[in-house]
Parts: sequence; structure tokens; C-alpha cells
Amino acid sequence: MSDCPVPFSDYQRVTLAHGGGGRVMHRIVEQLFRRAFESPELNEAHDGARLHVAGEVVVTTDAFTVRPLFFPGGDIGSLAIHGTTNDLAVTGARPRFLTASFILEEGMPLSDLERIVRSMGEAARASGVRVVAGDTKVVERGKGDGVFIATTGIGELFADVAPRRIAQGDAVIVSGPVGDHGTAVMLAREGLELPEGLVSDSADVSPAVRALVDAGVELHCLRDATRGGLATVVAELASAAGVDVRLREPMPVRPEVEDACELLGLDPLYVACEGRFVAFVPEAQALRALEALRSVDVAVGARVIGVVVAGGGVVTVENAFGGDRVLDIPSGEQLPRIC
Amino acid sequence: MSDCPVPFSDYQRVTLAHGGGGRVMHRIVEQLFRRAFESPELNEAHDGARLHVAGEVVVTTDAFTVRPLFFPGGDIGSLAIHGTTNDLAVTGARPRFLTASFILEEGMPLSDLERIVRSMGEAARASGVRVVAGDTKVVERGKGDGVFIATTGIGELFADVAPRRIAQGDAVIVSGPVGDHGTAVMLAREGLELPEGLVSDSADVSPAVRALVDAGVELHCLRDATRGGLATVVAELASAAGVDVRLREPMPVRPEVEDACELLGLDPLYVACEGRFVAFVPEAQALRALEALRSVDVAVGARVIGVVVAGGGVVTVENAFGGDRVLDIPSGEQLPRIC
Repeated sequence: MSDCPVPFSDYQRVTLAHGGGGRVMHRIVEQLFRRAFESPELNEAHDGARLHVAGEVVVTTDAFTVRPLFFPGGDIGSLAIHGTTNDLAVTGARPRFLTASFILEEGMPLSDLERIVRSMGEAARASGVRVVAGDTKVVERGKGDGVFIATTGIGELFADVAPRRIAQGDAVIVSGPVGDHGTAVMLAREGLELPEGLVSDSADVSPAVRALVDAGVELHCLRDATRGGLATVVAELASAAGVDVRLREPMPVRPEVEDACELLGLDPLYVACEGRFVAFVPEAQALRALEALRSVDVAVGARVIGVVVAGGGVVTVENAFGGDRVLDIPSGEQLPRIC
Repeated sequence: MSDCPVPFSDYQRVTLAHGGGGRVMHRIVEQLFRRAFESPELNEAHDGARLHVAGEVVVTTDAFTVRPLFFPGGDIGSLAIHGTTNDLAVTGARPRFLTASFILEEGMPLSDLERIVRSMGEAARASGVRVVAGDTKVVERGKGDGVFIATTGIGELFADVAPRRIAQGDAVIVSGPVGDHGTAVMLAREGLELPEGLVSDSADVSPAVRALVDAGVELHCLRDATRGGLATVVAELASAAGVDVRLREPMPVRPEVEDACELLGLDPLYVACEGRFVAFVPEAQALRALEALRSVDVAVGARVIGVVVAGGGVVTVENAFGGDRVLDIPSGEQLPRIC
């Protein structure tokens, strides 16, 4: 870090004054946050943002505590945007607006905060969402961990998708290979070298959801494969819908992810993705769905991985030899602070 | 704390598994959060909540990091609700929905979390808002501080209030005595005994705003006197509107707050409130406004404290002897982690 103060502050590092409501905080709000987010609502400097939203509204919220703050393929800022747009997209909503609350730790380098906020602004613009309201708090050194970001997303509903719509005979599609995000973050956290080409899959999946809708695919349910990974979300949905799901090996895992997971002692099917989702669609429309997904960058690796059958919530994976293993919802956490 | 596990967990304290996306997390979500918030949207267990909102929507966000978590007159849970409803109310919106993200520190007693979440649910119901979406993350011991809560509020616009509407000749009204919240929190944090009757003013002010609207008062601008206290918010608004404000002593400060602030070395006009707001209304309507405010519990102590005159953003307080002092926006923070 250079010895020059960053342009939006007389300080090099976050101080309690940056959350104090006085001039020091106003300066960082005006010269860092407002510039990075380019939002007329933020510029209003009112206590709340006035929005025009058409039709039914979808709201989702998430806190991001990922460690390290910067990882191959992204950072906590872009991740916060993608995590939020993806939650909206898989609820069948077009992401429109976003709020962001920052909890900063005293002593955090302001240059790191600047990188994160700029990355967040870029990711928001790329996704067509606008940050319309924000808040900043600072906690004493040792009472936080650099920065936590809590976001709320607001979108406009365009598709009726829900676990209860999952039906026997549905094809289960995953939008690409799984486990990249969690594996990349864990390797970075442990200070291990990443194999060539292994980066987080953190990305906005809403273009892929729109492609499905535009292709006229009847969507039953969508879910992004975040905490707990592909296995956990499929198990949760099977349980919520009261159906069994039969998946078939090989599952879509990159060889470098497979290798790294072996090293870390992880099952890649339980490792979080931040740019992958599962879609449940009528089997007759599976090929149309694949074609639509593969037309979009973020889902070129889409594949059918299984089928929904009658049952009571059990998910099995059949291997090449005809053997089955059950994918259950895990008890706790194999990967803390992955998002 | 008793030795029996709390009913919603096999654990006594927050573990990383409580944020892990597995069964341990699901159990706390179902048996603590969903029960406390009684919300059909949360029960849907979808990634996002579908809402019907009429007309123009107002959105506001805040992170709460108050320390201690429990203080005379409230706790971080009820404070998170009041802080959010108040931001909506002073933007001229009726509070309707709320999202809540929790960042928990590993090792936090679950009984404390339970108290906080229940208090939050009660405050939400009392304010007529519903918690429709939530998220829980856990960070390792020493990387957080018990619990941080980030909320986003969604309301329906009913009054056009904004700093640019402040006009010369407006009366400046405050809805009650100031400084109670920050003083009570600071005394509690320092382990000092609180004088009889000194508690946080944390409360939902939206009934008072509604009373003003129902009485037909022409509202120019409203602002809650949180971080930075009454002095800072009036100075900010004067600066934003390009007017001067002349306030007159005595300012509304309870004697016990005055005494405690003297002990703590604080100026009560700069101490945060969480249940007080300032209103700018045409002087001719000031008496009608006072009558409306005093009809509501949360604003029985409403008083006219000054007037708007031509100028460039200067706020002065005139004392009984005709002397003036200037109330400026402070640089940093006299009270960290007050909300």
C-alpha cells in the first residue's frame, strides 16, 4: 500500500470515525460509495430510496462473510452482487434494485475497501441492478473481520417457480460444473497454489434464467447451489416437494476441482457454487432447456443430471456399475465462511 | 444460563454449524426464527419472498452493531426494528415489510440470541411490519461480537417529504426530549448505574408521522435524530436545503440525561436518539402539528425548537441571554456502536 492517503479520506485505514455519522463518514459515502454505485437514489441522500416497481415484487436478503476477502475469480464485493441477483433469479424474478450494509473492522486498509466497493459497483452494472440504499458501521479492531456485507435484493416477478411445482418425470438440470467456488476459496484461504484454470464460478445466473423463459420452457423449480452445494439443495428440494430424485454419475465436476477436493478432504457435490443452479423442468422440454442454457456464457456447461420419481424425499446417485449412494442433507458445515 | 439445551438446538452456544446450511441451521431457522417472526413468507422457505406492494415503494437499509446487546429500554433486536421503521416513516412511507440478516459469533449463548429474536418479533408485530426474508451466517470466535443484524425495510409512500422542501419560515419541531438512547447505552456499556427513569427512547415513531398526516399538516421534511443526534441531523438538513436554522434554548433534554452527559463528557444535542425525529412544517401549522404529535404516546413531549431563515446552512442555538453558539456537523464520532 502506498503512503499517500486514498483520495476519499485523510486516513489509510478504517477508523471508528468512518462509521460515526460525521464529516469523515460523509466524505467516504460521497467520494467512494456514491461514485462506485452511480445511483440517483443514493445521490438523493435521503433516509430511504423511492422506487418504481412494476407488478409483484420479490425480496431476498443475504449476509456475506467470505474469507479471504479476495479470491481467484472474485471478491466479497462481486460475490455479494451475484449472490443476491442469483437468489432473485431462481425465485423467478428479474433483479432490479439492491441495498448494501457494510460492517467494517477498524484498521482495515481503505485501499482494500475501495477495491471491494468498486468491484461491487462493476458487478452491479454488469447485472443491470442498481444499489439504491446503503449503510456503514465500524466496529473496533478484533470485533469484526475486515468487512461483512449484507445485501437485500428487490426484483420483479416473471416466472412462477416453487418447490411445490416439482413433479414426477421432471428432468433435473444443472447449469454447469459444480464446486469451483468453494474449492477456489478454500485453497486461497489455506495459502495453497491453485491449479491452472481453477477459479470461483461466482457469476450472475439471471441471463440463463431469462434464456429459459424466453425459450418458453415450463419451469417448475430453480435453486442456486450455494451453501451445502448441489447435493444439499437437491436434497432440500426433494424433501420440500415430497419426491425422490435419481441422479446419475458422472456428475459435472471438473477434474481440477475433483483433485483439489480430494486434497482438502471435501466431497465436491457438497461444495458451494456461486454461479450454478439446478432447474426442474418437464422431461419432454429438457433438450430445449439445455439448448437455451448453453446459448448463455454462464451456462454453457449445462447438463441433465437426473430425474424426479415418486417417493418421500430421498436423493440417490447411481454410479456406472449400477450402485447407489444416498445424498443426504448434512448436519453441519464442511466449509465455514465460503460466502 | 441453565444447563438444559435451548429447545431449538442441541447446543448451548452458537456453533459454525448454525450457519452451515445443514440440518443444524435448518432447525434453528424453523424453530427459532420462523416461530418468532410468524411470517407466511418465511414459511414458504423459498430463496426470495413474494410481496404485494401498492404504489410507490420506499426502501431503506441499516446495520446494527450496538454494544451491549441488551440495554435499559431495549436490545439490538427491538432496536433493529425501530431503526428501520423510523427510517421509512421519516421518508414518508408506511412500514410494511422487513428483511433481516444475522451475523453471529461462534460461542454466543443461544439463549441470548433467542431473547433478541423474540424481542425483534414482538417489536415487528407491534409496528405492523412483517419479517419476510432472512439469512444467518456464523463467524469464528473473535471475528465478530455476539451478533450484528442488518435489516432492510420496505414501505409504501404516503407523503412527499424531502430536504429540498424545507422553506424559510418553517417551524422546527422535535418529537420529544433528546439523547436518552445514547446516554442509556453508554452508561450500560461502562457498567455505570443508571438514574431512575433513564432508559433508551428506542421506539417506532411511525404512529407520530401518521398522526401528522391525518391532521392534514403540510410536511416539508422529517428526519430521525439517530447517529450524531439532533444537532447533526439539523445541521445536515440546513446544509442540504441551503437555509439557516435558529434554535432557541432551553433545548428538550431531560435533567437526568443532562447530568449523565456531563459525567460522560458528552453534549446531549449530539447524542443519538432512536425514537425521536425532527419535523419541518410551515410555521402557521406548528400548533396543529404539536397537537397531533402529542396525541400519540411516542411524541407526547413534542416541542417547537426553532425556525428556518434565509442563509447558507448555518445552525445556531440562542441562549436565554441572547448569545449564540453554532451547531456544526462533527468530524468523527463521539459515541461508537450506539446503534
